Amino acid sequence: MPGNIFGKIFQLVTFGESHGPAIGGVIEGCPAGIALDLDFIQRELDRRKPGNIPGATARKETDEVRFLSGIFEGKTTGTPIAFLVGNKEPRPGDYEPLRERYRPGHADHTYDAKYGIRDHRGGGRASGRETAARVVGGALAKLFLGKEGIEITAYTSRIGPIEINGRCIDVDQEALAGSRTGCPDREKDMEMAGLLRQMEEEGDSVGGTVDCIIRGMPAGIGDPVFQKLSSVLALAVMSIGGARGVEFGSGFEAAGMKGSVHTDGLMNTGGHIVSEQNLAGGIAGGISTGEDICFRVAFKPPSSLTGMRGAISKEGIKSPAGGGRFDACIVPRVLPVVESMAALVIADHLLLNRSAKLHHE
Amino acid sequence: MPGNIFGKIFQLVTFGESHGPAIGGVIEGCPAGIALDLDFIQRELDRRKPGNIPGATARKETDEVRFLSGIFEGKTTGTPIAFLVGNKEPRPGDYEPLRERYRPGHADHTYDAKYGIRDHRGGGRASGRETAARVVGGALAKLFLGKEGIEITAYTSRIGPIEINGRCIDVDQEALAGSRTGCPDREKDMEMAGLLRQMEEEGDSVGGTVDCIIRGMPAGIGDPVFQKLSSVLALAVMSIGGARGVEFGSGFEAAGMKGSVHTDGLMNTGGHIVSEQNLAGGIAGGISTGEDICFRVAFKPPSSLTGMRGAISKEGIKSPAGGGRFDACIVPRVLPVVESMAALVIADHLLLNRSAKLHHE
Amino acid sequence: MPGNIFGKIFQLVTFGESHGPAIGGVIEGCPAGIALDLDFIQRELDRRKPGNIPGATARKETDEVRFLSGIFEGKTTGTPIAFLVGNKEPRPGDYEPLRERYRPGHADHTYDAKYGIRDHRGGGRASGRETAARVVGGALAKLFLGKEGIEITAYTSRIGPIEINGRCIDVDQEALAGSRTGCPDREKDMEMAGLLRQMEEEGDSVGGTVDCIIRGMPAGIGDPVFQKLSSVLALAVMSIGGARGVEFGSGFEAAGMKGSVHTDGLMNTGGHIVSEQNLAGGIAGGISTGEDICFRVAFKPPSSLTGMRGAISKEGIKSPAGGGRFDACIVPRVLPVVESMAALVIADHLLLNRSAKLHHE
Amino acid sequence: MPGNIFGKIFQLVTFGESHGPAIGGVIEGCPAGIALDLDFIQRELDRRKPGNIPGATARKETDEVRFLSGIFEGKTTGTPIAFLVGNKEPRPGDYEPLRERYRPGHADHTYDAKYGIRDHRGGGRASGRETAARVVGGALAKLFLGKEGIEITAYTSRIGPIEINGRCIDVDQEALAGSRTGCPDREKDMEMAGLLRQMEEEGDSVGGTVDCIIRGMPAGIGDPVFQKLSSVLALAVMSIGGARGVEFGSGFEAAGMKGSVHTDGLMNTGGHIVSEQNLAGGIAGGISTGEDICFRVAFKPPSSLTGMRGAISKEGIKSPAGGGRFDACIVPRVLPVVESMAALVIADHLLLNRSAKLHHE
Repeated sequence: MPGNIFGKIFQLVTFGESHGPAIGGVIEGCPAGIALDLDFIQRELDRRKPGNIPGATARKETDEVRFLSGIFEGKTTGTPIAFLVGNKEPRPGDYEPLRERYRPGHADHTYDAKYGIRDHRGGGRASGRETAARVVGGALAKLFLGKEGIEITAYTSRIGPIEINGRCIDVDQEALAGSRTGCPDREKDMEMAGLLRQMEEEGDSVGGTVDCIIRGMPAGIGDPVFQKLSSVLALAVMSIGGARGVEFGSGFEAAGMKGSVHTDGLMNTGGHIVSEQNLAGGIAGGISTGEDICFRVAFKPPSSLTGMRGAISKEGIKSPAGGGRFDACIVPRVLPVVESMAALVIADHLLLNRSAKLHHE
Repeated sequence: MPGNIFGKIFQLVTFGESHGPAIGGVIEGCPAGIALDLDFIQRELDRRKPGNIPGATARKETDEVRFLSGIFEGKTTGTPIAFLVGNKEPRPGDYEPLRERYRPGHADHTYDAKYGIRDHRGGGRASGRETAARVVGGALAKLFLGKEGIEITAYTSRIGPIEINGRCIDVDQEALAGSRTGCPDREKDMEMAGLLRQMEEEGDSVGGTVDCIIRGMPAGIGDPVFQKLSSVLALAVMSIGGARGVEFGSGFEAAGMKGSVHTDGLMNTGGHIVSEQNLAGGIAGGISTGEDICFRVAFKPPSSLTGMRGAISKEGIKSPAGGGRFDACIVPRVLPVVESMAALVIADHLLLNRSAKLHHE
Repeated sequence: MPGNIFGKIFQLVTFGESHGPAIGGVIEGCPAGIALDLDFIQRELDRRKPGNIPGATARKETDEVRFLSGIFEGKTTGTPIAFLVGNKEPRPGDYEPLRERYRPGHADHTYDAKYGIRDHRGGGRASGRETAARVVGGALAKLFLGKEGIEITAYTSRIGPIEINGRCIDVDQEALAGSRTGCPDREKDMEMAGLLRQMEEEGDSVGGTVDCIIRGMPAGIGDPVFQKLSSVLALAVMSIGGARGVEFGSGFEAAGMKGSVHTDGLMNTGGHIVSEQNLAGGIAGGISTGEDICFRVAFKPPSSLTGMRGAISKEGIKSPAGGGRFDACIVPRVLPVVESMAALVIADHLLLNRSAKLHHE
Repeated sequence: MPGNIFGKIFQLVTFGESHGPAIGGVIEGCPAGIALDLDFIQRELDRRKPGNIPGATARKETDEVRFLSGIFEGKTTGTPIAFLVGNKEPRPGDYEPLRERYRPGHADHTYDAKYGIRDHRGGGRASGRETAARVVGGALAKLFLGKEGIEITAYTSRIGPIEINGRCIDVDQEALAGSRTGCPDREKDMEMAGLLRQMEEEGDSVGGTVDCIIRGMPAGIGDPVFQKLSSVLALAVMSIGGARGVEFGSGFEAAGMKGSVHTDGLMNTGGHIVSEQNLAGGIAGGISTGEDICFRVAFKPPSSLTGMRGAISKEGIKSPAGGGRFDACIVPRVLPVVESMAALVIADHLLLNRSAKLHHE
């Protein structure tokens, strides 16, 4: 319960610090009988590796995953699936200057405030490296969702001043395959890549937004009141480091609109009830409408070299820090993490939903 | 677990339908020894009553709360606190036309998809009336928080096109006392009130935003990774009907900024570590920094008369609905609900945090 | 989480003190579409009323249940089912002497130690009266289980020195209908009734055991490792006031046996795998075998008049208490409570089990 | 939630199969600042190793534990503590005959019924080997409890026909140090050791009971109603493979007693309220009295060679199995497992209890 366990039935526990021997996780409650597609899982992990993403951190890890349990002859057995992702390039020494220093835009001082002790090396538990374990958990969830005909795609909708038009664009992984930044608009993708290289050169960074679309959702999934599907998705993506906001469907724009304009009449298309514009982002009263679920997440710029000047010592004295390694923008690398969090939520609620009616069909 | 229970230690369970005999709730895990200030609780409930809020629904309820358990000689005992808020003006007959009809912007069809059965009267369980129970739970949480020196204020920052400048404005309940719409800017407040009356006349409605500020937070509260304080607050407020987005600190604006601009150096002010601008909204790595926590929630316009034209029958045939009763804007009435959800989250995490260290001070 | 919520999906929250205005509960996660058989629910409540049970407490309550939510046109809707059972005969004044006194065999001093405050009237929250809410929750669970072909019967297997032979006796409610004490052996039943009347006359009390049998269980229900079906059933029944022990199948007797004797070969009977003797009580590795689940619970004698002599004041001075009202034996009245706890566990796990496999049949 | 996670705040997740690469676990919610005493942890693990316990399984494992996270410079940091215990001597080939066979007294057929798939090697997830991870978790809990002055000791009170007199005997680890079977009575210990060797020679096995005593408990720990300390302890120890029953204080004996005999007057000893006989086993109304907590667990005899004759094939045909490796009696090796489960429960509730009152002292 203290923060490192996610989900109710399909659960992910993660562990590990940036510069410990390994990070990893345990997937609990994954249904039995799912074929473990190792190539797919590794490809998912590779998507968040710095690799050839422009402006990404210099830290190089192979991010190979090793499964320790819960798999028998290539299939999930319903028992806990433990996995490790080794830390191949920890350079703890680099971080010695950070032992007694608090960096702005980081969780250094809040961890100390909460726990009274902290692994300062590379951000310790608060490092973005932890998201590798989320991606493994998300990949398992996706394998389950694939069987149910559900597909999740996150794409880059904004990097700094460059943004694309529209929301809920109908793209899939294939359409994004050749992109540099995960943006479906080829021209903007090029611009964004250029901006990221420029930021890298300048030792600067930039924020952005991620759009996420969940296709193939059946109607009737999700819980009402406190555990609305939108609420749980919001929790899930706001738990990613650097997330600053989330909106569903018409989002913040709806705040400025009149009800007579923000209308969304229902229709019957082939036995499915859908709305004209899907302004609700595929969720009504916390429960899926059967339309695409669609949301956007805002990420702040990573703390840049300039920002590090605002560090202080534990004693509260200005004490500018060097940068460690950081990304010029988190957005391109965070796409599989956003998808993974969404996949974990949807997998969990598909299973939870099996208990809603007297007879589950 | 299926949606009607909130929190981990300080928990709120709510129940009841819009047109049943009563709504109510059970507060579990409230620490023993808190004096039950009934006047305060009733005032909180009154804040969400339509009362003299311009453009509010015609439904009139006294919203008197009755406690059934967990209180002994005026103090909480640590056992479950059950309470009822009677439904004095249910007019179920009014809703008969809605029995076989699905309204746009409502959860009618999603409840049917999930459960196969639905109390159609006044939205049943999905009615905004359910939030009265949240306000009672939140009031108890506030009584606890008051003892810890924590104060929560939500105010109206936008109604339709009218918005105020700035975020995290330093207001408290007293400053808002004379306002019509809960907006701290007196001029804008008047404008907003005018807009709401106009909407009421036109049978139209409008969206808006709520800002919420939590003062007196100690540093070190909240959990890391999946249960970040920002994540749980996001879940909490996104569970309010009509919420479409939430952002913390610099929010969506951060997505367009460079890291060299979005800097927030740390300082030592009187032994407390604070940042120059509090761009993070008082939370770093999921844990409170000790600064004010600050977030904004966007609400869509309530479904208006125009919107109701888009209703369909269960069979999928266009079947315009009359309006029932609705608010011209949800924002003024939702302020205590936003505060209540925030109060429940903070109370829960204050208690959870007592387990973070070997010795709790 | 602090103790008054039971279950994971099919959940029961109870509230209320012995001498408050009402006790009650909320059933969360009950599948939609179950017909609410009010007569059945009332009959279940009547089974735990003192009524014509020999030696039962003099307190007379009608124990009429009133449902407030979650039911629409006679069926469950999947939303929380709140209910009240009024306290018609609270005599708080009777208990004034107990305000500053701790009774042996009661939770008076432990509640004070935990919470620092306590409703002393009739045991407050720790009163056996709380079990009425469990019986309502259990009745709902039974209505669900009935649809799945599962039937639960608890019977009296021992009262003081009088015990019946065998375990897992094949009885149902019908067979117990005419009994005085819930014992299926007519002769022993008469003896037990006589003993209870004698105890009543002597102001004494007596312990006993309850056997519980769950018939119609499918194989494969329950969770492994920490949440074994036997573990959760043990928790469930050990939460009933006065319970001192629980055993499954061969139970404590197995501790004295050799493996070569305690054998239980498997057989195939009509496609079902069963064991020769069901020594495991229908559960292997935490998961149901498909055989009858069978367990026994031991209850201590209620604190008698003699026992009350051992009361002390808060200051620790011997201060004999009068008795209040008590049962000569808890066993006959506790039968529906044991069944209810078992029903809640099985209902919960039937629903949980729908998530074990990729495709739920 | 599906069974492999234990606890609410101080949580243990375990994973791993008998013949996979490793078993292990994650400890979540352990307070920060506890010194990791690796020697102590290893000694605890050694206590459950077959080693020189008479009649123990022939499987030899070094059971060395390796920590992967959550520790910094020798202290817990409040983040998840992951650990591995390698499987050094898996002999999966040995178990090939069990692939298509169900053994009596094992969970082979129930895992297949629940999951439709099963790792048959050495019992897979249902193997007793899983308890090594419990012992590591329990050792961490004990390190925390040690700081709070709480000590837990389990000892052998019965092996087959040989049992010792009394309950709640005042022994500690030191007193048990020289024993062969963990029995504090030296003479009985010798007898028991002899019996175990005889069983080993005969290919037979025997059941037994474990007594567990928790000393140094403060009063006021534990939750009421459904999550009584006795209930949660019952769940905890009944989750150990082979457990068939549990009883607290006067236990099953109380069922045969009169209230006038089963009396337990309260006394004031040095400011502490205690009872004359501690018949309740240190818990009243689910909350600790401050006296020693005392309970007994019954274990069935392990399935012996004779028992294995009752195996059947998946098709339901009698198909006697060879034995694999098994213990002549589980009791001596299970002592640290019983203690570990108790330690996890008490650690969890000490932390939970910090939220009971307005101000935690």
